[in-house]
Amino acid sequence: MRIIDVRETVVPIKSEIRNAYIDFSQMTVSVLALVTDVVRQGKPVVGFGFSSNGRYAPSELLRERFIPRLKAAGPETPVDESGENLDPVRVWDVVRRNEKPGGRGERSVAVGVLDMAVWYAVAKIAGLPLFRLLADRFRGGVFDDKVFVYAAGGYYYPAKDLSALQKVMQGYLDLGYSVVKMKIGGAPLSEDLRRIEAVLKVAKSSDQLAVDANGRFDLEHAIAYAKALVPYRLRWFEEPGDPLDSELQARQANHYAGPMATGKNLFLLQDARNLIRYAQLRPDRDILQFGCALSYGLVEYLRILGMLKDHGWSPARCIPHGGHQMSLNIAAGLGLGGNESYPGVFQPFGGFADGIPVKDSYVKLSDIPGVGFEAKGELFRVMKNADGKPSGQP
Amino acid sequence: MRIIDVRETVVPIKSEIRNAYIDFSQMTVSVLALVTDVVRQGKPVVGFGFSSNGRYAPSELLRERFIPRLKAAGPETPVDESGENLDPVRVWDVVRRNEKPGGRGERSVAVGVLDMAVWYAVAKIAGLPLFRLLADRFRGGVFDDKVFVYAAGGYYYPAKDLSALQKVMQGYLDLGYSVVKMKIGGAPLSEDLRRIEAVLKVAKSSDQLAVDANGRFDLEHAIAYAKALVPYRLRWFEEPGDPLDSELQARQANHYAGPMATGKNLFLLQDARNLIRYAQLRPDRDILQFGCALSYGLVEYLRILGMLKDHGWSPARCIPHGGHQMSLNIAAGLGLGGNESYPGVFQPFGGFADGIPVKDSYVKLSDIPGVGFEAKGELFRVMKNADGKPSGQP
Repeated sequence: MRIIDVRETVVPIKSEIRNAYIDFSQMTVSVLALVTDVVRQGKPVVGFGFSSNGRYAPSELLRERFIPRLKAAGPETPVDESGENLDPVRVWDVVRRNEKPGGRGERSVAVGVLDMAVWYAVAKIAGLPLFRLLADRFRGGVFDDKVFVYAAGGYYYPAKDLSALQKVMQGYLDLGYSVVKMKIGGAPLSEDLRRIEAVLKVAKSSDQLAVDANGRFDLEHAIAYAKALVPYRLRWFEEPGDPLDSELQARQANHYAGPMATGKNLFLLQDARNLIRYAQLRPDRDILQFGCALSYGLVEYLRILGMLKDHGWSPARCIPHGGHQMSLNIAAGLGLGGNESYPGVFQPFGGFADGIPVKDSYVKLSDIPGVGFEAKGELFRVMKNADGKPSGQP
Repeated sequence: MRIIDVRETVVPIKSEIRNAYIDFSQMTVSVLALVTDVVRQGKPVVGFGFSSNGRYAPSELLRERFIPRLKAAGPETPVDESGENLDPVRVWDVVRRNEKPGGRGERSVAVGVLDMAVWYAVAKIAGLPLFRLLADRFRGGVFDDKVFVYAAGGYYYPAKDLSALQKVMQGYLDLGYSVVKMKIGGAPLSEDLRRIEAVLKVAKSSDQLAVDANGRFDLEHAIAYAKALVPYRLRWFEEPGDPLDSELQARQANHYAGPMATGKNLFLLQDARNLIRYAQLRPDRDILQFGCALSYGLVEYLRILGMLKDHGWSPARCIPHGGHQMSLNIAAGLGLGGNESYPGVFQPFGGFADGIPVKDSYVKLSDIPGVGFEAKGELFRVMKNADGKPSGQP
């Protein structure tokens, strides 16, 4: 059997009611028709479903990502062992392919992009670079004139051997970064250890290298990696387990005395607070990687910093996820411990001002009012293109 | 000052890299231009922002909800005290208006609707109503031939007085429900107590009434409500605080010996597990309201039931959020404690088969293969409309 088509329709279900949080005046529901080639009672079986109301129809996610993935399965339709019916668990796996872990969806991302544009405008109107505006508002005018940055990369590229990985990491060191980060967890432990050892050959010392498992491991694998990694004395070991599994984090840290980093997939004050409450992180060494752009923006990030202060954590323990100028401004203005950087990838969004080099893993900021986007030529060209004139305006 | 326009553009940033979880072959970013009427250096200030990559451009949320809310503020543009610049916190509040608490966004909702259509097709192809298929697969063929349902309503309607609320709740009792639920937390405590007392006048006993605060309260208010509600001996007290704040739940329950209900805004196995780990809920009386349609579907719900079993909880303690036939089938097939119902609202999606009345708060299921949508005429008409022929097909 196979899936012939999947179609989505939005149905409004407006209502005048409200609860303690929201009203339902604009509420919508998605209705889905999943057409199969299986015939029952002379007609093709069509699967129907609807989204439970209260969270708005998620049409774009269905139309742009989940339905295309299912259709792309084509003759590989995820069927059960009989071959005559769908296997919902296999469908689920196909649909969730290429979605990061952590349950948070697009709401925090959409608010984050809007929040960034607002802060940019606020700083522009005030005639200040954002880091100075933040320092004035929240830190008695004190700001850092340079920020620690590390180079994140070392991904699994298709068909790249160890020498290619070494070359990429050497390239980061040559660019002026003294700390680099590579991905692990996408290969067996033995292969990952070979990759780590290859990179350590090009690094000056083991604390130049951090490793990131992107939340891939269950407790057993997390502990196996922790035990295997301890002897290397790396800069840090990042996100071994599911971002929301504080118990895993706490239990595996019993086997890893070195610094750990986590939090980049927590998009909400409440989640950050649960991590601090339950994961037994160590304020003298561990690193908190909450970002702002994925996480309801700087407004929410300021709340997270307030929560951290209440729990005795210094902002210097924060090195946000997201290697871009917004995070860099926040780090310099609010006294964070640094910022990520992805040299050469995620362009033109990643990276900092053109012509300001990284020296000994520190970078300075542009003094242009706003977030400094103008100082990154390729990025600002994309932004200006996004600013088409509204119809009817000169 | 005011905001003249806000525009969003999607920019692809495809890349061949992958980490332990995802590849970036289809990755996109939203770029936002927020045009103000403030002039600096002879030109209007435009705020720019972009979404951090890794979670896909959330265009629809921006275009359908967040940007329109900000534009609708119009002359009420959320400015700071000077009136000359934007206030990012007030912008944030405007943008988040009418969004439910809990950080989960649309991803779990979109997967949920697809999962529903898949299970419908699976049951249809198997020639079984879903509850029987589930009972066969997961419960040795045992199913319940009727399911406990309660009527959720008692919202804050505009301009409704207490007699109108009494009438609505009396209507539910007349429909055959012996348990009804009303909203609290959208008014001062004293007014909510008057509303509760008004409803208790039409109920036979206080355990016919449950109350739902929709996560509105901080700890202080949650405890104040707990103390005020204890003497009423209500059926249950639902979601006093933020859905992700297990500590609040645990601490306020020290002041509330009666049954509590929560979990309807947790959309993921990991969140459900954190609730069980940290909120000190009581398996002898408390009620778990995880649903499937908002929460990555029945596939994820089955994992949640597995986790509950590991923690010593009976499926009978589960009464899912979402009063529709999908949840009803799951309840009957998997032996849950019941299902919500919203008589008359969220139509045509809410509610059960036409012509099967609720008796003493129990409802029977249609025997039609699938989820029973065909037995609910108005709903099935909407679904058939959603099943338009793809272009080029007969």
